[in-house]
Amino acid sequence: MGYIIENITVITWDDDRLKVLENATVETDGDRISRVGCGKNDAARRSGKIRIDGTGKALIPGLVNAHTHIPMTLLRSYADDLALHTWLFDHIFKIEDKLTDDDVYWGSQLGLMEMLAGGTTCFADMYYFVDRIAEAAAESGMRALLSRGLTNNEDKDDYSDDYRIKEAVETFRRWNGAENNRIRVAFAPHAIYTCAPKYIKAIRDTAEKLGAVIHVHVDETLKEHNNSLNQYGKTPTQHLYDLGLFDLPAIAAHCVHVTDTDMDLMMEKSVSFIHNPTSNLKLGSGIAPVPDALKKGINVALGTDGASSNNNLNMWEEINLAALIHKGARQDPLAVRAEEAFRMATANGARALGFNNTGQIREGFSADMVLIDLSKPHYLPEHNIVSNLAYSAQASDVETVFVDGRILYDKGEFKTLDREKILYNIKRVCERLFS
Amino acid sequence: MGYIIENITVITWDDDRLKVLENATVETDGDRISRVGCGKNDAARRSGKIRIDGTGKALIPGLVNAHTHIPMTLLRSYADDLALHTWLFDHIFKIEDKLTDDDVYWGSQLGLMEMLAGGTTCFADMYYFVDRIAEAAAESGMRALLSRGLTNNEDKDDYSDDYRIKEAVETFRRWNGAENNRIRVAFAPHAIYTCAPKYIKAIRDTAEKLGAVIHVHVDETLKEHNNSLNQYGKTPTQHLYDLGLFDLPAIAAHCVHVTDTDMDLMMEKSVSFIHNPTSNLKLGSGIAPVPDALKKGINVALGTDGASSNNNLNMWEEINLAALIHKGARQDPLAVRAEEAFRMATANGARALGFNNTGQIREGFSADMVLIDLSKPHYLPEHNIVSNLAYSAQASDVETVFVDGRILYDKGEFKTLDREKILYNIKRVCERLFS
Repeated sequence: MGYIIENITVITWDDDRLKVLENATVETDGDRISRVGCGKNDAARRSGKIRIDGTGKALIPGLVNAHTHIPMTLLRSYADDLALHTWLFDHIFKIEDKLTDDDVYWGSQLGLMEMLAGGTTCFADMYYFVDRIAEAAAESGMRALLSRGLTNNEDKDDYSDDYRIKEAVETFRRWNGAENNRIRVAFAPHAIYTCAPKYIKAIRDTAEKLGAVIHVHVDETLKEHNNSLNQYGKTPTQHLYDLGLFDLPAIAAHCVHVTDTDMDLMMEKSVSFIHNPTSNLKLGSGIAPVPDALKKGINVALGTDGASSNNNLNMWEEINLAALIHKGARQDPLAVRAEEAFRMATANGARALGFNNTGQIREGFSADMVLIDLSKPHYLPEHNIVSNLAYSAQASDVETVFVDGRILYDKGEFKTLDREKILYNIKRVCERLFS
Repeated sequence: MGYIIENITVITWDDDRLKVLENATVETDGDRISRVGCGKNDAARRSGKIRIDGTGKALIPGLVNAHTHIPMTLLRSYADDLALHTWLFDHIFKIEDKLTDDDVYWGSQLGLMEMLAGGTTCFADMYYFVDRIAEAAAESGMRALLSRGLTNNEDKDDYSDDYRIKEAVETFRRWNGAENNRIRVAFAPHAIYTCAPKYIKAIRDTAEKLGAVIHVHVDETLKEHNNSLNQYGKTPTQHLYDLGLFDLPAIAAHCVHVTDTDMDLMMEKSVSFIHNPTSNLKLGSGIAPVPDALKKGINVALGTDGASSNNNLNMWEEINLAALIHKGARQDPLAVRAEEAFRMATANGARALGFNNTGQIREGFSADMVLIDLSKPHYLPEHNIVSNLAYSAQASDVETVFVDGRILYDKGEFKTLDREKILYNIKRVCERLFS
């Protein structure tokens, strides 16, 4: 089984090269892209497949949301425009204390629905009740790197009784590699201010034994940065480097206040820099040094963070901001180019999360692809399609979403998620949570 | 003739107060809002009107794009990600030299289509071949403050033979107050670096005689700012103030590098500060001191600028950026609140452009209103609808657009513009322009 998409404009990163193919033909076979043909007269090789006419449409790799907390869709627009401390302690934590696994399941479903409708095919999540998030992700058919946020500030030598690490290990054993390897499980020491150094080391050692990836918040606020200097005499990045955390494949979310030396360490250890522009702006955290990271060759990917600090899971806004804010903040119109922002949201994201052979429209790669309707006024004239995607696209321009060669969303219709059921349950769980 | 919109959530600024009405009823009578009723049991007063069920929808004032150059849609995504000088001199100016009045007409039609589909009902434009822009605006049914950009660096005492001012006066006489006063004409000395001081004075005097509003670019780049200090020994704002330009009602676009003293002068003269966040970021101009302007009580409105420096005319992105970037740049999550950004794009815009009795959902005001579909996942849960609009809305959530009580756009359909004809002509004019 497979699809043949004809007369399509393919826009993809091909390793280090941006590739735009006009009038191309893309074929899938099962979960893979089996052929990418070029030119008007390129005929489809095999029949028996479902044909899709791509005229007036673009085919791009599925977007990768490389840092989020999807159940936090439940907290979207709850307690906005407040000082960080008030927001977190007086509002967010109070609700999170009341969350049940059922709430997390339905909040995840809402987030999955929003992501799919906007062309996101893959995401990296950090939260709790992760088994329920995995269940929702599996049902959706999306690709996900899931993790249990681990926090423990108690400094001790033995964490073998730590229930959080135990949970994380159980989740890893249950879900890592499930669903045709679409679901993988990472280990997530939450941040240096919520984890004692030895706790981070314990998590690191557990992850190493299991061969797991690391997902961690790094240097999000100036407060975190300065506290680290005071407490450890070094930056958060140097602290984590010295604990050996970055000896494992790692994604570091935020990196707003990383120094030049920190970025050298990240480059040395191939740590991925996950840029969350909306969240960093909205919470007043600052503007991450993305142009410098790019210059050093660091793998920069994009994330939305949770919906409560964004307030959505719309990766098009992150692409747009990644391409815009550094130009303005540095008064340099060349700071981050449109194609670089597009790469961050696709190929770089896939690489960060360790999903090999995804994130590009390329023979042999997973068929994680998105069809974009280019007929809207904001795509005209067609001078530069990559510019149009980075600066003008809306999530609603997404027409069809494929993951592993399967259509999960098509023209407003969810193929794996039950929209009405989700809306009903969101209302139900919110009535209890916020009453 | 009129409409009765029932069971609707109304979100509006009511002078200085944000007003959110649940289960309201809004009635129109001809071009006016004739009644805004509150509460579930509020029955419609009159029959014989067309009833619209507003369940699951919001009604907001039409968005006001307070600074744009709509024919520049023709240059969307043409020559992006270049240094400012290369972009302007090697690319943009070369194409603009070739533009005919026919090109400007079709470029305007494309821009009008994009604006209407995104809920913009009113805009302030500065360009040339303004009669053709006015013609397009009149056909669309939208509200517009149009102006001919005036440039002349020749310093002399008498500009009575200046063909540009003559054109502007003719356009004023032909169009000001036309179409039920939906079209008005401003005078636009382009900027201090393109106009000799005496030329600005001549424009000012002409505008004063005719009772016209001023539309001007102010302090967009650090280069403009420093050149002004060198050439005139004062800032661009002080220079224009001293020339008496701000004795007339004026909208000042950009204001990226205005000083604290400049803002005091703007406040003294009631000059509106038109914030163009996307354009200022994309061109690397910088980040305007909007939080300070708000603190002083200056009327801050929002604009997209032309599509070549944006690359769209999507006011939702400007609202989003206005609410986000100042928080991040100042590391202050309270810098600009969601409701302030929403106000900039509605009531403040209407006030800036001098369209009295527009920009609010209020009895006796012009029925310039937009219905928003709140059923999308990114609006759930419904904790705070203003937050959701500012941080999560997409232009595509716009369902119906009214201007002067008339529906101009409804569920993807343009009532006054011919989509196919516009797309055909855009293709035609671009083939010549860019060959």
